[in-house]
Amino acid sequence: MQIILLSGGSGKRLWPLSNDLRSKQFIQIFKTPEGSYESMIQRVYRQIQSVDPEANITIATAKNQVAAIKNQLGSSVEICVEPCRRDTLPAIALASAYLYDVLGVKEDEPVIVCPVDPFVNEDYFEALKALSNLTAQSGGSSITLLGIEPTYPSAKYGYIKPQTKDLVSKVESFKEKPSESAAQKLIEQGSLWNAGVFAFKLGYALKKAHDLVDFKEYWDLRDIYSTLPSVSFDYEVIEKESNISVMRFGGEWKDLGTWNTITEAMDEPTIGKAILDKRCKNVNVINDLTIPILCMGLKDVVVSASAQGILVSDKETSSYIKEYVDNISQEVMFAQKSWGEYRVLEVGEKSMTIRVNLHKDHQMNYHSHDNRNEVWTIIDGEGRTIIDGMEQHVHPGDVITILSGCKHTIIALSELTLIEVQLGDNISVHDKKKHTL
Amino acid sequence: MQIILLSGGSGKRLWPLSNDLRSKQFIQIFKTPEGSYESMIQRVYRQIQSVDPEANITIATAKNQVAAIKNQLGSSVEICVEPCRRDTLPAIALASAYLYDVLGVKEDEPVIVCPVDPFVNEDYFEALKALSNLTAQSGGSSITLLGIEPTYPSAKYGYIKPQTKDLVSKVESFKEKPSESAAQKLIEQGSLWNAGVFAFKLGYALKKAHDLVDFKEYWDLRDIYSTLPSVSFDYEVIEKESNISVMRFGGEWKDLGTWNTITEAMDEPTIGKAILDKRCKNVNVINDLTIPILCMGLKDVVVSASAQGILVSDKETSSYIKEYVDNISQEVMFAQKSWGEYRVLEVGEKSMTIRVNLHKDHQMNYHSHDNRNEVWTIIDGEGRTIIDGMEQHVHPGDVITILSGCKHTIIALSELTLIEVQLGDNISVHDKKKHTL
Repeated sequence: MQIILLSGGSGKRLWPLSNDLRSKQFIQIFKTPEGSYESMIQRVYRQIQSVDPEANITIATAKNQVAAIKNQLGSSVEICVEPCRRDTLPAIALASAYLYDVLGVKEDEPVIVCPVDPFVNEDYFEALKALSNLTAQSGGSSITLLGIEPTYPSAKYGYIKPQTKDLVSKVESFKEKPSESAAQKLIEQGSLWNAGVFAFKLGYALKKAHDLVDFKEYWDLRDIYSTLPSVSFDYEVIEKESNISVMRFGGEWKDLGTWNTITEAMDEPTIGKAILDKRCKNVNVINDLTIPILCMGLKDVVVSASAQGILVSDKETSSYIKEYVDNISQEVMFAQKSWGEYRVLEVGEKSMTIRVNLHKDHQMNYHSHDNRNEVWTIIDGEGRTIIDGMEQHVHPGDVITILSGCKHTIIALSELTLIEVQLGDNISVHDKKKHTL
Repeated sequence: MQIILLSGGSGKRLWPLSNDLRSKQFIQIFKTPEGSYESMIQRVYRQIQSVDPEANITIATAKNQVAAIKNQLGSSVEICVEPCRRDTLPAIALASAYLYDVLGVKEDEPVIVCPVDPFVNEDYFEALKALSNLTAQSGGSSITLLGIEPTYPSAKYGYIKPQTKDLVSKVESFKEKPSESAAQKLIEQGSLWNAGVFAFKLGYALKKAHDLVDFKEYWDLRDIYSTLPSVSFDYEVIEKESNISVMRFGGEWKDLGTWNTITEAMDEPTIGKAILDKRCKNVNVINDLTIPILCMGLKDVVVSASAQGILVSDKETSSYIKEYVDNISQEVMFAQKSWGEYRVLEVGEKSMTIRVNLHKDHQMNYHSHDNRNEVWTIIDGEGRTIIDGMEQHVHPGDVITILSGCKHTIIALSELTLIEVQLGDNISVHDKKKHTL
C-alpha cells in the first residue's frame, strides 16, 4: 500500500519531554517487543511494515522534524519536506505531487493518508490495507474515511454519521467537536469518530491540488508552497465532497495527546530512574534525566522530567498544561539531529556546556560560528575532526579548541561522545554558517 | 556569652537538598532580612550575634563539615573539629577542653551548649543569655536545661518535668520519647520539651570529661578521641545529675527535621524556578536546579530538586523518607568547599563533568590524581593556575589539561567558574593526593 504519514504538531502538551524541536511523536516511551523503548512514529512505522512489508511509506513533515525522523527511522526513510508550515490541504497536495513526480506513483493507485501518532494495534493497519484495496476498485467513492467506533461521548473529536451500519457506508453528515450531550446523541445515532484517515486514488488528490493552485509538478509546487493558503483538507475537500464513504473500525484506537492518556498506555508505571513508595497509587514517572526521582504518598500524579524542566501534575489536570508552558520561555535543552543528539548541561552568563553524542559513521555539517569559541573534550569513542581543512584522529581525552570563524566538523568512527563548552557574548543556535568540505 | 553550637547530623531526611556532605543545617532556604537565602546555621549564627554582639561562638563538628561551615560563616569562625564521629558526651568534652586550653576560657565561666539548627526567633537567644547569666551566679545548679513549653503531644521529643511552674525550677524527672498518650499526660502535668540546650560552668564539663577519660589537655584528648565511647551527654551526665534545673521558654521553637516542617517555615511557597497552577493547594517547591518545575493540580505536596535527585512527596508522608534514601546509592553530586562549590553536570562511563565555582582570593589545595586526567575550561573570571610548579594567568576560554600525577591548583583572582571534565577508568573523590606548594 501507498501510505502518507502526516507528521506535524508542536510539543507543548507533553512538555517537558517534548519541546520546540521534539514533537510528541518522537518521545520514546513505548515498550517494543524487544524490551527497549520506541516513539509513536517508530511504533507506527514498525506496525505498518509488519502488516504490509511491501508498504511504501512517505512521511510528510516540516523541515525541523527531518533530523529527528532520520535519527529514529534511519536515513533511508522517504520524506516529503514542507518548506514551511501550512495546513493539511497544502501538505497533502505537496505529498501527492511528490508521490507522482518523484516516486512515480500512478494516478489510479490508491493512497492512504494517516496521522503519524495513533496509538493502535496491528488490526488498525490491517483495516488500512482493506481501505486501500477498497479504494483500488473502480466505481467506488472518491474518498473513503476511517471511522472509529466511539467509546465515550468526547467533545474533542469530529464525528462522521454513516447512512448505514455496514462496514462501509456512504457518509450522511459531519459534526466537528460537538458538546458532550450532542456527542452522546450522535453516538446513539451511530456516528463514528473521525480518525483523520482518508483514502483516495492519487489522481483525485492531484486534481484537488491543481484546483487549489496553478503548478506543473512537485518542484514548482514546492517553490510556491509559502504562497499557499493555510486551509484544511477536512474543510476544503472532505466536507464538500458528495461521493464519500466511511469504513468503520472497532479495534483499539487511542489519541495520546496528554500526559493523562499517555500514562494509560504505559506498560509499567515508571520509565527511567524512579522510586515509588508503597503509599503511591496510580502514579507514573517518565524520567529522562540521569538523577533519580523519589515519589512518596502521591495519588493520580504524573511526574515527567527532562533537561527542559520537570512537570508534576495531577493526571486529569495535566490536560491544561499548554497555557503554562506557553509562558515558559526557554532555550531548547535537548534535540535529536540526523547525526545523533545533544543535551544542554549548563547555561552560564557567557557560556553553555552541552553533551554531544554522534552515531557511528555519522558527522555534523561542516560549519562555523561568528560569535563564539568552542572547546571540545572527547570523552568516549573515536573520530576524525576537520578544523579549517586540517584533519585529526581523536580519542577520549583529546581537546580541540575552535575559535570563532573557524570551520569545523567531527566524523564519528564509532559511537562518540564529547563535552562542548561554548564561550561568547551572544551564544545562539542561529549563529551557524554551513560550509562545503 | 560563651556558646558551643553542636553541628552534627546526616542529610538523609532532607534529601535531595542534603547529601552525605551537606547536612540539613547548610541548606539555604530561609529568607534573610535582606531578601537573600540563608541556612539554619547562618540564621542561628546571625541571631546570636544580633542578640549578643560579644558572644563567643564555637562550633563543635566533624571534619567533613568544616568546609561548608567556613563557606557559609566565613573563614574566621571558631571551629572545634572532632577527629571522628562520637556521641555528644565526647563532643562536649572535646569542645570544653578546646575552650579551656585553646581559647583560655576560665573554669568558672558559664557555657551554653545548643544544637545548631533550632528554628527560633531572637527571644530564644535572649533566653540563652539569661540562662548564661543565671549559670554565672554562685550557688545555683550544676547544670540548667532549657525547657520548651509544648504545643502538642509529640512522641519524638524528650520531656522534662519541673518541680514547680516557676521560670526556673529544679528538675523532677525525665521521660525520653513517650507515646502520644503518655506525652499528653506529661503535658497536663506541666512537663516541657527538652530542646537539647544546657548551661554549666566550664569546670563542670571539664570534670565530666576527666571522669570519662584520662587526659591532660585538649591536644591529647583530641589524639585519643577515636578511643572514646559513643555515649550521650543526656544519658551519661544529665540524667545522672541530681543538682539540675530547667528554665522554661514559651516563645516560638521549631525543630525542622522533615520536609513537612521545613515547608511550614517557608515565607513563600517556592524557592528557585517554579510555577504553581491555580489549582495547587498547600504546595511547596524548593528547586536547586536551573530548569523550571511546573506543578499542576497538586494538594499538600512538597517538591524538592537538586543535582542529587528529585523528591515529590505528600507532605505528611515525607517524614518516612529515610528508608528510601538509604537505598539510593549515589555519588555526592554537589558540595560546598572552603574555597567555593562544585556540582556534577554529567556522569559518563569513564568520565565526569563538573562545574566548579571558586570565590575571590580562594584556592583549592595543591593536589594530584593517580587515575584520571582533567581538562579545565575557564568560563568566567580571572585566576592563576599552578601546574607542576608552573604559574599561568588564566581567563575565560583558556583550557588547561592536567594529566594524572600532575600537581595542580587554581587561585581565584575574582569569582571564577570553570568546567572540569574528568577522564579515567576509576574516577573517585578519594583519588586525591595533597602536596605542599
